[in-house]
Amino acid sequence: MTKPNLGTLIIIGGHEDKAGDRVILNEVARRARDDGGRLVVVTAATQLPEEVAEDYRAAFGDLGIKHIDMLDVRTRAEAHEAALVDKVKAARVIFFTGGDQLRITSQLGDSPLFQALLETYHTGGTLVGTSAGAAAMPGTMLISGPSDASSKLPSLGMAPGLGLMPDAVIDSHFAERGRIGRLLGAVAQNPRNLGIGIDEDTAIVVERGICFDVIGSGAVYVVDGSDISYSSLCETDADGVISIDDVRLHVLGTGDQYDLIARRPVR
Amino acid sequence: MTKPNLGTLIIIGGHEDKAGDRVILNEVARRARDDGGRLVVVTAATQLPEEVAEDYRAAFGDLGIKHIDMLDVRTRAEAHEAALVDKVKAARVIFFTGGDQLRITSQLGDSPLFQALLETYHTGGTLVGTSAGAAAMPGTMLISGPSDASSKLPSLGMAPGLGLMPDAVIDSHFAERGRIGRLLGAVAQNPRNLGIGIDEDTAIVVERGICFDVIGSGAVYVVDGSDISYSSLCETDADGVISIDDVRLHVLGTGDQYDLIARRPVR
Repeated sequence: MTKPNLGTLIIIGGHEDKAGDRVILNEVARRARDDGGRLVVVTAATQLPEEVAEDYRAAFGDLGIKHIDMLDVRTRAEAHEAALVDKVKAARVIFFTGGDQLRITSQLGDSPLFQALLETYHTGGTLVGTSAGAAAMPGTMLISGPSDASSKLPSLGMAPGLGLMPDAVIDSHFAERGRIGRLLGAVAQNPRNLGIGIDEDTAIVVERGICFDVIGSGAVYVVDGSDISYSSLCETDADGVISIDDVRLHVLGTGDQYDLIARRPVR
Repeated sequence: MTKPNLGTLIIIGGHEDKAGDRVILNEVARRARDDGGRLVVVTAATQLPEEVAEDYRAAFGDLGIKHIDMLDVRTRAEAHEAALVDKVKAARVIFFTGGDQLRITSQLGDSPLFQALLETYHTGGTLVGTSAGAAAMPGTMLISGPSDASSKLPSLGMAPGLGLMPDAVIDSHFAERGRIGRLLGAVAQNPRNLGIGIDEDTAIVVERGICFDVIGSGAVYVVDGSDISYSSLCETDADGVISIDDVRLHVLGTGDQYDLIARRPVR
């Protein structure tokens, strides 16, 4: 990224609480209330935009957000419409719902709408994504792979992400869907990328790309491949499990902090 | 353990192939054929002993084992019966089926039957366990804990195991049931124990307690807690996720070998 990054990313592992304590949505709402009172919810990822919009309109309305703009971008042409771009420009907090991460990148990638999002982010705004909206954040995003299974090379699908967190791969619904295998496979493809697996109702709050705090009820798994001494990625036959030696793994819970520059939990 | 250990453990993650290539059962059968031609199958763990016995009788019969003794130990009294103990003494390969690992330890623990098993093992015989039969092998065994969820302290159930692999904790159905969270929690309780998570249709073949080879179609996850620099195990409130820093993780596939003394994959 060429611009300095003053923004915040709130990256949620999906199924954040919408009716109880709402720790995560409360954090999103607080930022919206403190920074102009507006919130944009982008439902581009989902094929049920009305239902999803209604859920978030209710939850964020309860949390005191008066101006909520729902952006249901269905086509790349819409991502060029000045009226939609202006809505993004008017808000300092923008929320991406779940669905399919490829819908987000293929409709928004490199569009004026995305440039407006980026401007918001770089100037200190907050971009939020849950589930597919979380997966889309990094430079390269996981789009498919086994759940509750060990990683085999042909089973991993990767695609270019939004680039908001360049040196990471994010996976959501992490413990719930047994995704350690696929995240390990993704990290082994290029250990430059830190693997971040986020449980449901759990989020990382990334400040200026430098560090993150964990909030919510579940865990965040950090898969650090820096010390990988061997992987069979290029040797293995098409059916084989990917062998990997010396992965460093951290499990973080609410209140824990991680330093993305030093690649260390902060204790 | 006081006696030298010349034996082999074949520890299977459950659901080993019984009709196709049967890589794992073939390895068990080969050892039985080469060492007296007898096999004992202990169905103590299961509440469906007839069905389970029938499956293994068919599979091992196909693989050329002529003398198969089914030991359906239902009570501790039976584990003292000379006729059953003699059957164990006559065989050099003994196979524990799946079911509930507490049924194995509570019926067999410290019985004459178990002493006969131990004698077989220490003198170079082979003990095999799948699923619950695998979980029961270590000094301390996992008996309950979350699947597809991150580990929270009260959710982990541990109990004294058979002690055949003293410094390990074994979990089975590993990727399939999303059990990394509970194995991490078990290792954090005492990092002396190496955590070994075994996928279905996958096994480790442990020779003399020194090293193991991986066979089968899935992966084996080795969770080495030696370098854990922090865990919240004693700090966390009852609802909290267990935070753990600096776990070393290896993923091994068929053909890979692990040195239990050096705690390193062999490459």
